[in-house]
Amino acid sequence: MEKLKCTVAYDGSRFFGYQVQPGKRTVQREIETALARMHHGQKIKITASGRTDRGVHAVGQVFHFTTPLAIPTGNWTKALNSLLPDDIYIRRTEGVPDGFHARYDVKRKEYRYRILTRGEPDLFRRLYTAHVAQPLDLEKMNRAAAHFLGTHDFSSFCAANTDVKNKVRTIYHLDVHRESEEETVIRIIGGGFLYQMVRIITGTLLDIGTLVLSPEAIPEIIVAKDRGAASKTAPACGLTLWKVTY
Amino acid sequence: MEKLKCTVAYDGSRFFGYQVQPGKRTVQREIETALARMHHGQKIKITASGRTDRGVHAVGQVFHFTTPLAIPTGNWTKALNSLLPDDIYIRRTEGVPDGFHARYDVKRKEYRYRILTRGEPDLFRRLYTAHVAQPLDLEKMNRAAAHFLGTHDFSSFCAANTDVKNKVRTIYHLDVHRESEEETVIRIIGGGFLYQMVRIITGTLLDIGTLVLSPEAIPEIIVAKDRGAASKTAPACGLTLWKVTY
Repeated sequence: MEKLKCTVAYDGSRFFGYQVQPGKRTVQREIETALARMHHGQKIKITASGRTDRGVHAVGQVFHFTTPLAIPTGNWTKALNSLLPDDIYIRRTEGVPDGFHARYDVKRKEYRYRILTRGEPDLFRRLYTAHVAQPLDLEKMNRAAAHFLGTHDFSSFCAANTDVKNKVRTIYHLDVHRESEEETVIRIIGGGFLYQMVRIITGTLLDIGTLVLSPEAIPEIIVAKDRGAASKTAPACGLTLWKVTY
Repeated sequence: MEKLKCTVAYDGSRFFGYQVQPGKRTVQREIETALARMHHGQKIKITASGRTDRGVHAVGQVFHFTTPLAIPTGNWTKALNSLLPDDIYIRRTEGVPDGFHARYDVKRKEYRYRILTRGEPDLFRRLYTAHVAQPLDLEKMNRAAAHFLGTHDFSSFCAANTDVKNKVRTIYHLDVHRESEEETVIRIIGGGFLYQMVRIITGTLLDIGTLVLSPEAIPEIIVAKDRGAASKTAPACGLTLWKVTY
């Protein structure tokens, strides 16, 4: 038996999220289907760094699995890609020690949120950006971003429907920068994130960028520990799981 | 009765082309369905500058229609967009004289073909670019492009299955340029194009860019008046109808 770690990109647009759900097209199901074909019908379970919601993309999601097949590690990527649909792409496969775990061993996760800021929406970027029809005050957004850094109880930035008890998380990096004339990117790196936390932080930063909220409101919103204190959840399509570090 | 001209963008990925086909999702059908809703069920036929194939996109397709409704011209765009699916977007609506015809009055059409040149494919650009895994020799492609300019019989660059007899067309502009590190764009402007002509010219230019063919082969291919003399048809997804001029 060999343990393998795969780095995978996917276009979340046509998936009902990452995790297997009965009767739904999900990323996990497509990958497990491809693996079953390679294993002559034998079910091979994969374990990812975490799930992503419906419509959320990935550039560097990571999963592991164990296989009885003696295929050279270098051949796995091509073999899997040839069996996967065109909205999933395995970028790398590497052997890992038996003790490796794609979820428990995560040190940092980076997400990026892409915003299209111009009057008209853009059809060709609708699946990969969130559209904001007005300019954003990046200076104010970055001032607000600084308040999120460090270790806090992020209850205000967690969707209500979750079972997780401990809502203390650490954010190592958060910045907002213009990537081109029309696109602004929010980059966030943390030790782990609560359910919809990145999208709620993004929604709140967007309220700051459009002057609905002041950057100085952030500490109070954090202290409130109340989902109602933060802004709306930003749309899934702008979000990409960028990198997982072990 | 008022005659209106609309400029429309669409993402061709999920359409079976522009033109109505029984039982298929097409751009024309979606627009005519939206118009019928605005006209209390009355069928309103639209006439476009020409059809586009399955998977081909548009930034500036144009169509006209006549309406008995007395809606201020400025309100049509919003009203139509509110009824259209998210992969069609009306950019502008303007009143035109009774004599205007979206197909017969075309003076020039511009198409752009987008190519991703890098080793790995890119999931997030797969619907809007054609992937070529090796670098392209743009100098050679532009030398070849010059041979297409002017008025020629383009039989060699027309798909076999067409009823059109007169295959003489005029090309006003054709160039290949790098738009970013990874993207190369072919821009072509002509008085009109034969069936799949832009994609066959593109396929031939790609053979020149990858050194399969020499730029000096073009005059002979044109003179041959034989589809077999030119290269493969390039994939639909890289192609966008950019602009129609009247």
